[in-house]
Amino acid sequence: MTHTPDIKRPPRDLCNALAKVGSATAAGELNQMGLRDTFIRGPVAHSKGRTIAGPALTLQFMPKREDIYGANEYDDPETQLHRHVLYHTQAGDIVVVDARGDMTSGIFGSMMLSYFAGRGGKGVIIDGCIRDSEQCFALDLGYWIRGVTPNYHTQTNIIPFAVNVPIACGDALVFPGDIIIADDDGAVVVPVAMADELLKRASHHVEWEEFTRMKLLQGEDLRKYYPLRADAQAEYEAWRAAQSGES
Amino acid sequence: MTHTPDIKRPPRDLCNALAKVGSATAAGELNQMGLRDTFIRGPVAHSKGRTIAGPALTLQFMPKREDIYGANEYDDPETQLHRHVLYHTQAGDIVVVDARGDMTSGIFGSMMLSYFAGRGGKGVIIDGCIRDSEQCFALDLGYWIRGVTPNYHTQTNIIPFAVNVPIACGDALVFPGDIIIADDDGAVVVPVAMADELLKRASHHVEWEEFTRMKLLQGEDLRKYYPLRADAQAEYEAWRAAQSGES
Amino acid sequence: MTHTPDIKRPPRDLCNALAKVGSATAAGELNQMGLRDTFIRGPVAHSKGRTIAGPALTLQFMPKREDIYGANEYDDPETQLHRHVLYHTQAGDIVVVDARGDMTSGIFGSMMLSYFAGRGGKGVIIDGCIRDSEQCFALDLGYWIRGVTPNYHTQTNIIPFAVNVPIACGDALVFPGDIIIADDDGAVVVPVAMADELLKRASHHVEWEEFTRMKLLQGEDLRKYYPLRADAQAEYEAWRAAQSGES
Amino acid sequence: MTHTPDIKRPPRDLCNALAKVGSATAAGELNQMGLRDTFIRGPVAHSKGRTIAGPALTLQFMPKREDIYGANEYDDPETQLHRHVLYHTQAGDIVVVDARGDMTSGIFGSMMLSYFAGRGGKGVIIDGCIRDSEQCFALDLGYWIRGVTPNYHTQTNIIPFAVNVPIACGDALVFPGDIIIADDDGAVVVPVAMADELLKRASHHVEWEEFTRMKLLQGEDLRKYYPLRADAQAEYEAWRAAQSGES
Amino acid sequence: MTHTPDIKRPPRDLCNALAKVGSATAAGELNQMGLRDTFIRGPVAHSKGRTIAGPALTLQFMPKREDIYGANEYDDPETQLHRHVLYHTQAGDIVVVDARGDMTSGIFGSMMLSYFAGRGGKGVIIDGCIRDSEQCFALDLGYWIRGVTPNYHTQTNIIPFAVNVPIACGDALVFPGDIIIADDDGAVVVPVAMADELLKRASHHVEWEEFTRMKLLQGEDLRKYYPLRADAQAEYEAWRAAQSGES
Amino acid sequence: MTHTPDIKRPPRDLCNALAKVGSATAAGELNQMGLRDTFIRGPVAHSKGRTIAGPALTLQFMPKREDIYGANEYDDPETQLHRHVLYHTQAGDIVVVDARGDMTSGIFGSMMLSYFAGRGGKGVIIDGCIRDSEQCFALDLGYWIRGVTPNYHTQTNIIPFAVNVPIACGDALVFPGDIIIADDDGAVVVPVAMADELLKRASHHVEWEEFTRMKLLQGEDLRKYYPLRADAQAEYEAWRAAQSGES
Repeated sequence: MTHTPDIKRPPRDLCNALAKVGSATAAGELNQMGLRDTFIRGPVAHSKGRTIAGPALTLQFMPKREDIYGANEYDDPETQLHRHVLYHTQAGDIVVVDARGDMTSGIFGSMMLSYFAGRGGKGVIIDGCIRDSEQCFALDLGYWIRGVTPNYHTQTNIIPFAVNVPIACGDALVFPGDIIIADDDGAVVVPVAMADELLKRASHHVEWEEFTRMKLLQGEDLRKYYPLRADAQAEYEAWRAAQSGES
Repeated sequence: MTHTPDIKRPPRDLCNALAKVGSATAAGELNQMGLRDTFIRGPVAHSKGRTIAGPALTLQFMPKREDIYGANEYDDPETQLHRHVLYHTQAGDIVVVDARGDMTSGIFGSMMLSYFAGRGGKGVIIDGCIRDSEQCFALDLGYWIRGVTPNYHTQTNIIPFAVNVPIACGDALVFPGDIIIADDDGAVVVPVAMADELLKRASHHVEWEEFTRMKLLQGEDLRKYYPLRADAQAEYEAWRAAQSGES
Repeated sequence: MTHTPDIKRPPRDLCNALAKVGSATAAGELNQMGLRDTFIRGPVAHSKGRTIAGPALTLQFMPKREDIYGANEYDDPETQLHRHVLYHTQAGDIVVVDARGDMTSGIFGSMMLSYFAGRGGKGVIIDGCIRDSEQCFALDLGYWIRGVTPNYHTQTNIIPFAVNVPIACGDALVFPGDIIIADDDGAVVVPVAMADELLKRASHHVEWEEFTRMKLLQGEDLRKYYPLRADAQAEYEAWRAAQSGES
Repeated sequence: MTHTPDIKRPPRDLCNALAKVGSATAAGELNQMGLRDTFIRGPVAHSKGRTIAGPALTLQFMPKREDIYGANEYDDPETQLHRHVLYHTQAGDIVVVDARGDMTSGIFGSMMLSYFAGRGGKGVIIDGCIRDSEQCFALDLGYWIRGVTPNYHTQTNIIPFAVNVPIACGDALVFPGDIIIADDDGAVVVPVAMADELLKRASHHVEWEEFTRMKLLQGEDLRKYYPLRADAQAEYEAWRAAQSGES
Repeated sequence: MTHTPDIKRPPRDLCNALAKVGSATAAGELNQMGLRDTFIRGPVAHSKGRTIAGPALTLQFMPKREDIYGANEYDDPETQLHRHVLYHTQAGDIVVVDARGDMTSGIFGSMMLSYFAGRGGKGVIIDGCIRDSEQCFALDLGYWIRGVTPNYHTQTNIIPFAVNVPIACGDALVFPGDIIIADDDGAVVVPVAMADELLKRASHHVEWEEFTRMKLLQGEDLRKYYPLRADAQAEYEAWRAAQSGES
Repeated sequence: MTHTPDIKRPPRDLCNALAKVGSATAAGELNQMGLRDTFIRGPVAHSKGRTIAGPALTLQFMPKREDIYGANEYDDPETQLHRHVLYHTQAGDIVVVDARGDMTSGIFGSMMLSYFAGRGGKGVIIDGCIRDSEQCFALDLGYWIRGVTPNYHTQTNIIPFAVNVPIACGDALVFPGDIIIADDDGAVVVPVAMADELLKRASHHVEWEEFTRMKLLQGEDLRKYYPLRADAQAEYEAWRAAQSGES
């Protein structure tokens, strides 16, 4: 019988807070903290308007070799590792797959993802494709994928090989349990040990940003309002006071 | 004067039945029947929500060579082979083009495709691009293409070379008259001689799928409901009976 | 202090007239005028349904080299060249960026583009990515880009290097002040010196096109109606007369 | 039984004369004659120091499809089309293969090429690989290929599909019987109808080239000696006279 | 302290026998035995004329992440995993590296490979590069690599991650202890469990091959001599008898 | 008349000293000094066994545009910028070309390079190809190129655009006058301002390297001899003393 390890999950509150940070701020701040590039390149948002953050369940595919992965997989579905990674699903989890960039393998179809959604899964990051895409996109899940295909996961070049091990996804190294932040800009990896510091840095909230955006859209000078120059500070404070007065 | 061969068409009923099968089931079943990969890789659905199935009219492009394809093509439009493939259009036909993956040649524009739609054409599969895309997408046609471009078909690298001959499209071999099934997952090739068998296999309808999907979305156990385990069978039958009673 | 040159702008009327020509007609006519390929390959319309034409502000990126572009850029925002190109913005301008096809650098974010929109900028053509994409796409701007990323512009491989110099964007050579026409089919470059001639050629308005399209959609013969054959001419004229009578 | 057409061969003298022209002069002159690019991009000389010219036998591969090309090929070798193209070999012939750029298919091995060499074949141009490379390279043949592999020709992705039909090789269109000129710079296609004109243009022998090269290697002025300027003409003629006197 | 597992080695005699089989026969026979493609695509022979066979020591690289692999690697060389894989070297071993196709990382330099050669290592298969190539190529080792670079192994994008684990190299799945056969055609993977059967199949020695090759080079008929037709059998036997008489 | 700027050259002695450092040590040390990656990726040594170092003359190509670069280039060779860059040649110079990775444009032929060699040029680094390769390789020059082609420099896609300006070559930023070190591992860029420091770092000569290499080749322990461990120090010194005694 197949046993695969579960992951250690960060506090849900931490993930929720990171979702508010968003991928762009996270990528920039993590870079300042020493991680040059945490962006998972390749998978693109196919569920526009969603921002999610949660721990990574990981699934690794490898090049197909018939001596270790024969047709008999379908005799006993329990040997299929892409099922096993989903068995670990808890509310808020994100499944991250190294599909080797393959464009002719549909890693998950609508049945697998219905189960994942039913268990509270939040999103799917694949360096490759899904199948049954129309039905999949109808589920309440976020998708960051390279594309879609009618082919099933082991039909051509790759086979599922390991669950909840470190993987490479879109040229990023992802450990099981790392936190993923994903939104329309894409997905980034946040090492758990750096999550609190990231949150702290990101929460130096630029309160004047709304004011600045308004000014810029009015055609005002970038030099004066972004970042906020000394001579714009009073103006901003007056605006803020007026705003408060209004509400 | 240019003459190009027509294709032999499968029964329309067969195509209609295959459209209900969809590309994902077709690709999977054809694989079990011995065809490793029937997916036309590269062309992507640009007309989401459509499923079509029909016989392939084929058009082959080749690298441009000025000694056999000069500027004078426009002196006599009747020498343009991309027109000739469309002259064969009958209701339900799908035109499949080997455009060599070229991203700077717009194989068809809105006039050609208006004619194709007017004749009852159902869809366009191109390993390359169309032009006039805004107007094209307004037509009642399905599109599986790699992209769009303002360039016309022979502007840069390629020239139309043959009509209704075997072609390679998206790394799939397509014979004129092969059946294409295309939906949001992409397009697959069905050899005519295998179509009946495919239909038979695909029609082993998994009646419990709707039931299973419902259970999975409720967070139930994948092992129990997919595939349907013995101990879930009774539960399913009870549900089905209840369903029937309701209607 | 950093000084960068402004561009010489063509008459606004000329640009407006060219916008009506559209990219497909422009690419085709410029080809007949001797420019084999004016299409900016790679950047794809992310703001469907817009057609814009205007002069190019240009920004060139180069491979990153730490001896000439250190972390201190953020000490003085005024050294950031991607700001400087936007300082030149006038109503109707289009900013064109050679980002070397890089998919891990977000050239502009929402603050920069709010400023650009506030100054009257019309569109952004990048051989690469933007970041903060959700907020960017909410602005009244046209986007022709290769994708999106959470990373900022100098986070990984490239650095802004020069403003309003000749650049290569998507394998097209663009001079500052060249006119860009961009719509759903993509973006093309129009050398200013060829703009009047292009306009003249494009204005040989094919008045019968509407008539032809109607006929083709009715399933009529392509040979007769496109181009309009002698025996269809009378039919067309009768139709046109009837149209006029109606209005 | 399989029958494949032979090719029409140009006079051997013509081919011999073209071999002296070489690929660089041929590519340049053909460009001036209207053929933008006759270079077969991709296949690289693996037999340095050889220049050959001769008519093209062509072999076309297509994506593999198991319904038309099963394992039974090996039951009857006579069905193997890569054998048939070689059956046509006459002294001086060059076999040109569209292998679709595939790097995991060895189109020919040492047995096939021993036969080809035994029949007087001169060279092999493949947009792909050979196998048994060590033994192949020991034969008296020229090779322009993309690489080598231990795999056999139909092992993975492609199948031989047609003999002596027009093919695309390395993004060049090659008709059966076209003349190929190949040397260390690569291979170019010469349409038979343009061969005499090419020869005539190329034979405007630049007699002063040897003189110029000598001068340039001595550090003399490029402007004066290449092309030969008026004030260098006398110098050249004196040198030539002296040369003649010596011999 | 870092501990990494050793591998289980097949008998040396088995490896020696497989070296005589060569990669082309091995790839072909393994395909007939059910392994579609055992070729390690990408790494190319840089040490022409060598054939080696031996067990695989494996080294896996992953995308660089600064939180788990800092600059301090050089403080304690014992943490460098690319050293550890070599510590296991026994006579006849082959080290196989998944370098993710990276062309800017030199996995091993001349010191590491001097040690490897000193311990009896036979060859290096890397889906990437080496550095100090001139000195490396002077060692008595076989090289199948994608190229060379002056950069060191962790200078840019990748880091060594695991030793003697299953890896993907050149789109082939390699287990530690699998047998590699490598020669001028490239490298193939032989699963240990299939090695005896491969050897048996390959030893059906085609004794007539030398005879056939001679005949083919004399211009004789491919149909008669390859494979050996009934009417050539007597001729072959006479030749063999004569050969024996000579010796 | 065309005027192009010359470059400022570093002392010849400095270049000679850097040639002894070699590209691998230079790339590694420059990385420690803050330049992540100075390797010019793509161009490969085609003149094995040479190490050169010298200042960069630079030549920039751009995508072809017929309005600014017509056929008339050949009417007046003096307008050809690839000639002009060579006019600046002084003894020891290296010409570095951004050819945009183009594989169908032969930047220089044998006449240009004969002149370059005659003037004392040392090597050619091109992110693209040369033509007349057989004659070029006979010259006393080093070559780091991506390949060869029979096509001439402006035959297809690109045109020479600027001389002695900053360029990108193989994803490295090169300023005119930067020092290039090139050997069998490839070419690296050394900013002039960092050359002295690089030389100083590189000259911490590891005198024990020869000793270590000998030990490693004898199968001794890597941990003991590389780097040289305390308990191997005395052994090394004894060996060195013996060596001195011998000489």
